[in-house]
Amino acid sequence: MTTILALVKQNEALAQLRATLPADVRLLTADQATAADLAQVDIIYGWNETGRKVLALSQQQVKWIQTISAGVDSLPLAQLKQQHILLSNTSGIHAESIAESVIGMLLMHVRGLQESAVQQTQSQWHKPEHHQLTTLKAKQLLIYGTGHIGQRIAELANALGMQVSGVNRSGHPVDHFGATYSMATVKSALRQADVIVNVMPLTATTKHFFNADFFAQLQKQPIFVNVGRGPSVDTSALITALQQQVGFAALDVFEDEPLPADHPLWQQKNVLLMPHISGIFDGYMRAANQIFLNNLQSFLTQGQLAQNQVELDRGY
Amino acid sequence: MTTILALVKQNEALAQLRATLPADVRLLTADQATAADLAQVDIIYGWNETGRKVLALSQQQVKWIQTISAGVDSLPLAQLKQQHILLSNTSGIHAESIAESVIGMLLMHVRGLQESAVQQTQSQWHKPEHHQLTTLKAKQLLIYGTGHIGQRIAELANALGMQVSGVNRSGHPVDHFGATYSMATVKSALRQADVIVNVMPLTATTKHFFNADFFAQLQKQPIFVNVGRGPSVDTSALITALQQQVGFAALDVFEDEPLPADHPLWQQKNVLLMPHISGIFDGYMRAANQIFLNNLQSFLTQGQLAQNQVELDRGY
Repeated sequence: MTTILALVKQNEALAQLRATLPADVRLLTADQATAADLAQVDIIYGWNETGRKVLALSQQQVKWIQTISAGVDSLPLAQLKQQHILLSNTSGIHAESIAESVIGMLLMHVRGLQESAVQQTQSQWHKPEHHQLTTLKAKQLLIYGTGHIGQRIAELANALGMQVSGVNRSGHPVDHFGATYSMATVKSALRQADVIVNVMPLTATTKHFFNADFFAQLQKQPIFVNVGRGPSVDTSALITALQQQVGFAALDVFEDEPLPADHPLWQQKNVLLMPHISGIFDGYMRAANQIFLNNLQSFLTQGQLAQNQVELDRGY
Repeated sequence: MTTILALVKQNEALAQLRATLPADVRLLTADQATAADLAQVDIIYGWNETGRKVLALSQQQVKWIQTISAGVDSLPLAQLKQQHILLSNTSGIHAESIAESVIGMLLMHVRGLQESAVQQTQSQWHKPEHHQLTTLKAKQLLIYGTGHIGQRIAELANALGMQVSGVNRSGHPVDHFGATYSMATVKSALRQADVIVNVMPLTATTKHFFNADFFAQLQKQPIFVNVGRGPSVDTSALITALQQQVGFAALDVFEDEPLPADHPLWQQKNVLLMPHISGIFDGYMRAANQIFLNNLQSFLTQGQLAQNQVELDRGY
């Protein structure tokens, strides 16, 4: 008998998953599992504090954790490595929804739609001047992160007539990017950027990567978009930069989530703040289940993961 | 001496236009023109009530009107025809900005961005459920109007993976549309539409085209977008349909503009209302001036318009 502990919402998608499992596999939710059950968990699907408690049990026998997120920065990666626990994520399933969100956020800003939505709440009709609205066409877009999500953003931005560049560790070329740079070679492109998007994973390298030194390099008061991870941005430095070097910020992720009601970002005029939703879509759990089932099959038959295995040292 | 009466905003773009004119052409603004001047106007650039007054003068000698809009429904087309006055518009220059606006409006809705923008004004963090957000990918888009604007919307929608169909008078094929229909053949596609966009000009045929009978045909509670002309929609019928057949409406144009503060549309929950801005962008008047100068050259040398001449009988 293989035991799966599901740390995900109990909904129709979970019911479908349960109905799909082989006969010798049982799936328990946290509220169903006894203390004895927790010591028999082989596989964890999803992640939260209960997962941490299971790993801390002296008798625990977890061999694989499948997250339902792309980012795995909230998991104890060093501990997993030490305990020889496999880890896989759902990288890839968010590409479409996050890319559509990013393009939506950009269009919302340049086409005056955010202002319209706010005025609508006050029954106000106020027409901006021509010079206050622009188009994305021919604007310079620089994307930090050239994986699934970055590529789909780049593809859509190309269709909009933007000039798209990307940044990755080596500066290697990637489909849909007109140019790619390493952190060391990007400086000139960074100065020319009209729009900067972060989709990098959170690692020791990217923590507070977007800091005062970064913002000081900007020359065109670009739009800054973060749909990667909150702690990649030094929020205080961003708020200061919003007075000068950054024209507008569209943020879906934050160092503190939920963003506290008294956080100074709420008072900024030139921002769009979203409650970490850019990756959410109606088919999300069905897509996550597919990855899990594919990995489950290979795990049960070969003790290996078929897709989306995370390199624990690298963190993605 | 040729006299141009400019009925457009006095700004840098107008100053540039004035500096570009041939020596024997004078450009007057409404506040500069005396009563005697108005009787000597050969060309009107732009349109408002002053234009109507000039055409009513017994001695008037207007030969050509160049609007700075695509729609010419506010001009007295029958009178122009009778007086043998040429008419040209700026159709084409709005395609990019309107297409970006339409895609922005759609993404704003399906990706939860409008709700985020409104919550932001109240420092509220509220995360929707997965099933409340979706993507445009694979959705069925039906565009009424397959001209410049419709084609650019179709092109961008294709990049987003939407299934794009169009409606025009004859149902003839048009680039970027997977299928095209006439009003008579579109019924089945209309029932299947997830998104309906109107970009048709306002004519006797399209006035209140989107009425109770139209909305009664819808089966998938689609998003309805109007960036064409306000009077193409029977607003009362739309408000009724928003209770049942129409899931959401994104409207940039209205039967009454500005939309009165007590208009019931402001109280609707499932709408995005914009103050007629989808065609506006920072380079607008430069683009309009280019069309005007091109037409001016051909008008002065050959008495003809090089581009964008409106068929007065047809109305576009």
